[in-house]
Amino acid sequence: MYQLLLPDLRLMLSENDEQGMKEFCEALFPAVSAEILIEVSPEEAWRVLSKCSLARLVEIFEYFTLPFQIELVDLMDRECLSRLIEEMAPDDRVDLLERLDPNHVESILPLVAQAERTDIRKLLSYPEDSAGSIMTTEYASLPKDITVKEAFERLRLQAPDRETIYYIYIIDEHRHLIGFLTMRKLILARPDQKLSEIMARDIISVRVDEDQEKVARDIDKYGFLAIPVVDNTNRLVGIVTHDDATDILEDEAEEDQQRLAAVEPLEDSYLSTPLLTLSKKRGVWLFFLLGASVLTAWVLQYFEAGDTNNWVIMFLPLVLASGGNAGSQSAALVISALAREHFSLKGGSALKIIYRELFLSTLLGGTVGLVSFGAAWLLTDAIEPAIVVSSTVLLVVVMASVAGAALPIIVHSFHVDPAYMSTPLIAALVDVAGVIIYFNVAFLVYGSYPPFAI
Amino acid sequence: MYQLLLPDLRLMLSENDEQGMKEFCEALFPAVSAEILIEVSPEEAWRVLSKCSLARLVEIFEYFTLPFQIELVDLMDRECLSRLIEEMAPDDRVDLLERLDPNHVESILPLVAQAERTDIRKLLSYPEDSAGSIMTTEYASLPKDITVKEAFERLRLQAPDRETIYYIYIIDEHRHLIGFLTMRKLILARPDQKLSEIMARDIISVRVDEDQEKVARDIDKYGFLAIPVVDNTNRLVGIVTHDDATDILEDEAEEDQQRLAAVEPLEDSYLSTPLLTLSKKRGVWLFFLLGASVLTAWVLQYFEAGDTNNWVIMFLPLVLASGGNAGSQSAALVISALAREHFSLKGGSALKIIYRELFLSTLLGGTVGLVSFGAAWLLTDAIEPAIVVSSTVLLVVVMASVAGAALPIIVHSFHVDPAYMSTPLIAALVDVAGVIIYFNVAFLVYGSYPPFAI
Repeated sequence: MYQLLLPDLRLMLSENDEQGMKEFCEALFPAVSAEILIEVSPEEAWRVLSKCSLARLVEIFEYFTLPFQIELVDLMDRECLSRLIEEMAPDDRVDLLERLDPNHVESILPLVAQAERTDIRKLLSYPEDSAGSIMTTEYASLPKDITVKEAFERLRLQAPDRETIYYIYIIDEHRHLIGFLTMRKLILARPDQKLSEIMARDIISVRVDEDQEKVARDIDKYGFLAIPVVDNTNRLVGIVTHDDATDILEDEAEEDQQRLAAVEPLEDSYLSTPLLTLSKKRGVWLFFLLGASVLTAWVLQYFEAGDTNNWVIMFLPLVLASGGNAGSQSAALVISALAREHFSLKGGSALKIIYRELFLSTLLGGTVGLVSFGAAWLLTDAIEPAIVVSSTVLLVVVMASVAGAALPIIVHSFHVDPAYMSTPLIAALVDVAGVIIYFNVAFLVYGSYPPFAI
Repeated sequence: MYQLLLPDLRLMLSENDEQGMKEFCEALFPAVSAEILIEVSPEEAWRVLSKCSLARLVEIFEYFTLPFQIELVDLMDRECLSRLIEEMAPDDRVDLLERLDPNHVESILPLVAQAERTDIRKLLSYPEDSAGSIMTTEYASLPKDITVKEAFERLRLQAPDRETIYYIYIIDEHRHLIGFLTMRKLILARPDQKLSEIMARDIISVRVDEDQEKVARDIDKYGFLAIPVVDNTNRLVGIVTHDDATDILEDEAEEDQQRLAAVEPLEDSYLSTPLLTLSKKRGVWLFFLLGASVLTAWVLQYFEAGDTNNWVIMFLPLVLASGGNAGSQSAALVISALAREHFSLKGGSALKIIYRELFLSTLLGGTVGLVSFGAAWLLTDAIEPAIVVSSTVLLVVVMASVAGAALPIIVHSFHVDPAYMSTPLIAALVDVAGVIIYFNVAFLVYGSYPPFAI
């Protein structure tokens, strides 16, 4: 619905309406501003964002995807970037810094205030995918000996810059986690009660080196707003909040979906992954699966021994499987991108996807075709079958990849769940088309349809 | 880690240690008690739960999966069930009641207190998958004319039975949603300020008939704890909370994963879905895909015209695809079950899965085989090819289903992500094994390997 504001924004940009841009940032919800700004180029987005206050800039910035954040960072001067980093939530800024060029980070850090700098260095030191790498250090904590009334006063001071004040962690003088209170419990308590009287003492916490997926599942299972993170001496070092847990669970589900379709999981969204990266993530599996298909061809040769005419049969499963595998990959990638709304179909993204698949599949089909040329030559000891098989593989991979990407987009535009364009369905469609391509390529090479004498 | 308590629980049950069972419910976190109780039979779980207080029973009960809840409900008397329903959160109890036999529900409702009954009837009336069907009516709301101090007093009264008091909705005398406050803002405000001075007036809300996935995505996108649900005159009727949003997003991701593997989405977990339901959810797609394979066979027949010996080739893609499809289905189901930890591998679940797949695949392979018998007979006009093709389909479907289920379990037990056992990989393995099965079945029928004269 907010897409209606996009034309207004474009108008402001073309008229260089500075006042309008400022209002665009300040008057809308930060999430809404972010949602619209991501539709224009990073340069244009930065022209708008540079008009607004630092506090609002940070709020909007944190809603952007990482790749978009990185593009924006490249447009900022060091001074502005260091202010931004100071103000960002500790977990979000570490996510960003981890993805920037380390030299660039080192050049900015001296400009960042001491306290933030120490915090950044600490969070950056935790291994990727650990609780430590996703936690924030902005939690509300109190000592156990104060009263409920005093607690409210102290929370009032902590409130502005804590990620949540609804979960309050009780710590001793060495920061050991000894108790836990919800804001609900605090409100229900009498003002003169001591926190030690009302706090819960058995606390579910996670270790700082725990795997992030386990942490996210715990938060989800218990329905927590946040879970405390402790070091190996039970000192409180941070919290992981529910919204980060949801992101992690979604990322893990998407990774599983990509693995299930034989794609090495992407780090970014489909559209922001460079083509070379994407071709590696897909190619490694296509080659592995091609190996299995060559085995099938070899088994078929064994059974067909003495009937050398039948190379067409030998390589039939191979050409069909190559297409099925490539089609499964592109279908799964596009379907998960559609499900997470990484792109809106209006912005010409559909066409961009088809172009990407065309380019990618030519590259992948070409190399897989080359290897199958070698395999076919070796197994049949003749060049013509190798030409037919490899050309067919190329054509089938291109056809399957484009169809695998286009069909989910087409059914999605009719408001049908794109996931109905399942891996087996794409493979089935590729089978029919693949056979037709295979025999016609053979016809072109041999001048007649099979069977042929070699 | 809590699995360590399971032997203790079994001991208590065998010794009928009533005090121990009571403590088991009262001393542990409800989520932990639930996690362990789900490992024993519903009858045993109910023996334990019947010892504890109603309040604790409700807390533990809400952590169970729906199928387990339904089994427990069957063991309760009407009186106990009506008390339980009164105390449950509105959204959870509607989920449960929607799954119970409507006659059973009608017999319980008269025992439920009037206020709850009205609420239940209202929530039950919203269409499935709408915001109305997942919202809870236990939200915190306040009028706009009171002071911050008065607000705290009123919230103290509302706190015990509201799903969240951290988001406060400001309504006018007709319950129209006119403002919004966070507890954080309330704590930061001066006690004498009026709520109308500090409340936010532009509120992101969803309509009661909005699709639940859209609602969950909004909560996720904005990082909200809850989102208000309004009717078409902007009257506040409920809220949807972040934990329900996470559940919905996970369910949708799992549905997508199942659709992607050509399985109609299951409503329950893999292990609690009845075999007949599972066979329907898979069968419908297997038959549809078989149709596509018959088309491939027909296209091959067209190209091979005049060479009737080649029925083996004609049906090669069909037998391999049948196996690939069945294997993809079982692999995807087992992988998503493993990812969501619907079962622990220790409890003999792995064996149970293999038995289920054996039974299911025999049923599915038998019927798909029967249809391919007909198709092969029609296309070749001979009975022997039909026998070979249909027997091969049966064997390949059984082999692929069992392998598709077993391989993810095996790699998982070596702490490898089971999703590496991707759909294309299972299909590739099935291709190799399928060819061997196909030619050996043909050998059994014809007494020699193909090609044969019909």
